[in-house]
Amino acid sequence: MATIKDIANRLGVSVSTVSKGLNGASDISNELRQMVLDTAVELGYSTKRSKKEDRRKLAILIENMDYEALDEFGYDIVLGFRQNAFRHKWDVTVIPVTPTFQTQDKYDTFLLRNGYCGAFLCGFALHDEWMSQIATTTMPTVLLDNVIDGNPNVCCIGTDSQEGIQMAINHLYTLGHKNIAFLNGSLHSWVSEQRQDAYLASMKRLGLEVKEEYLANGYYVADSAKYHVPGFLSAGATAILCGNDLIASGVIKECKQRGFRVPEDISVVGFDDIPIAPTLEPPLTTIRQNRNAIGKCAYVILNSLIHHIAISKTMLRPELIERESTGRISAK
Amino acid sequence: MATIKDIANRLGVSVSTVSKGLNGASDISNELRQMVLDTAVELGYSTKRSKKEDRRKLAILIENMDYEALDEFGYDIVLGFRQNAFRHKWDVTVIPVTPTFQTQDKYDTFLLRNGYCGAFLCGFALHDEWMSQIATTTMPTVLLDNVIDGNPNVCCIGTDSQEGIQMAINHLYTLGHKNIAFLNGSLHSWVSEQRQDAYLASMKRLGLEVKEEYLANGYYVADSAKYHVPGFLSAGATAILCGNDLIASGVIKECKQRGFRVPEDISVVGFDDIPIAPTLEPPLTTIRQNRNAIGKCAYVILNSLIHHIAISKTMLRPELIERESTGRISAK
Repeated sequence: MATIKDIANRLGVSVSTVSKGLNGASDISNELRQMVLDTAVELGYSTKRSKKEDRRKLAILIENMDYEALDEFGYDIVLGFRQNAFRHKWDVTVIPVTPTFQTQDKYDTFLLRNGYCGAFLCGFALHDEWMSQIATTTMPTVLLDNVIDGNPNVCCIGTDSQEGIQMAINHLYTLGHKNIAFLNGSLHSWVSEQRQDAYLASMKRLGLEVKEEYLANGYYVADSAKYHVPGFLSAGATAILCGNDLIASGVIKECKQRGFRVPEDISVVGFDDIPIAPTLEPPLTTIRQNRNAIGKCAYVILNSLIHHIAISKTMLRPELIERESTGRISAK
Repeated sequence: MATIKDIANRLGVSVSTVSKGLNGASDISNELRQMVLDTAVELGYSTKRSKKEDRRKLAILIENMDYEALDEFGYDIVLGFRQNAFRHKWDVTVIPVTPTFQTQDKYDTFLLRNGYCGAFLCGFALHDEWMSQIATTTMPTVLLDNVIDGNPNVCCIGTDSQEGIQMAINHLYTLGHKNIAFLNGSLHSWVSEQRQDAYLASMKRLGLEVKEEYLANGYYVADSAKYHVPGFLSAGATAILCGNDLIASGVIKECKQRGFRVPEDISVVGFDDIPIAPTLEPPLTTIRQNRNAIGKCAYVILNSLIHHIAISKTMLRPELIERESTGRISAK
């Protein structure tokens, strides 16, 4: 377990500064205090404080999402949530959930029986057992990338897909691309629908044609590229926008295997900016989801729901990260 | 200026309980502490604490919106913001703004020169001088009912119009109405566009026809009713949904003057649930915007922006308030 000294070493400050930060002393800056608290959580110092008995509890329920290693999608989301919750003296438990797990207890029963005041749900699918119960839950609940209508106890959080897709299309258009294909994520997910709408609207706004062959669903796995890239290429696409970075890595590989150079012949844009994005060849241009901010914001929203502020939807800004997988359209 | 005793009297608790609440003592409940703090702000106790020199400052900038009296639209919005800001020891200044005022200083300059760390803007119109500057502002800014694309320092907040309009249409449909007209607010505002889209989508979902004569803009004044109600009625509308409660009050008056009874002949639904809504004859069925929650949430979001959590959009849940201006469609 991390000590105050570990935190001091990581930040390069004195032990007494860390101590001031942890104890809310007023003679250090807000920014420094926040860095101390964030680092304390990241290094696991929070588990020490959480032994106090009167702490209130929140749950992060995770399905279909890796979060334990630094380079996994969920890591920063979980960390951000815990960092903000720690400041307000909440205990946070991260609970991996399976479909079977969801049949053992009703959602509300599970939370109440274990003393949780609210939960943040990541990676759930619309057909999950608990998702149907969330339409009427009385427990404050923040849902990543899913929308529930009409229940004031539930809020959706996610990156603003509309703005992200628009940024990507505008970036490609600026580079001269007019034939832009979109290998989206899973069908029948709220996020995929938002992104498809945004793709169609952005193309229309720029007066670009969307051929039927330009739109497909890749189910968030790299392998899906090989089923769809050939169709995109033969339909004349010069750029391929992808539903996530994994799909993009598959698209780059598939393009290369078919003798197309990236970005000289084909530009490729990802979504997410996971840690592998800059390590691809070429390094991937992508739309960043700020996952630490998503986690921090999810806590803020959950805390608001607990205080009866009925927020239905919160969207975070995406960011265009320009690397080398996109380039000016060639004269070819 | 309010004293601790005033707060104790209002809440019916002892002076020492109020003192504990104000000083963050741990032996009273969270709920009671929050009630003490909320009441302190409402009664003006905050101005006493704000004399301390090290307090940081936020601004609420208001245009085209009354907020000083209890029954005015902006009152609860401003109060909610101040209540939440007070807990985190921010000073809040409410500044009424005119078009001329906006030409005297750039937006950022005004905030910086006066030492504000961020601002909450209410009632601004898209054509306002400062609105164009907000596309590139570096100051954390929360905008009520307006959207700015692409600037991570700016977030839009408002009631979820889509859900609100859908609730209203579903309510009328359940009462048997199929011919539903919509007298929306001003043209060319983001909120009006959202609501019009939601009206069209809700009608389509239920398989209801939208005649051309069913859609008009009322500019948020009661008088606009007389220009549009005759057209709605002659086109066969049996229900009229309105962009706000003021428009609805005009619609009720106009219907009555033309010999139509509300709700026996025509059902009328408002939007907002301002204090006059239950006093109309008949009392108005309306879609409530929880204005205190909007204000509280606006503070939470502004505080997040200040901490570099780039939220783009936050929507609050509307609520259907059923009163007597809507009824089953008559057999007539």
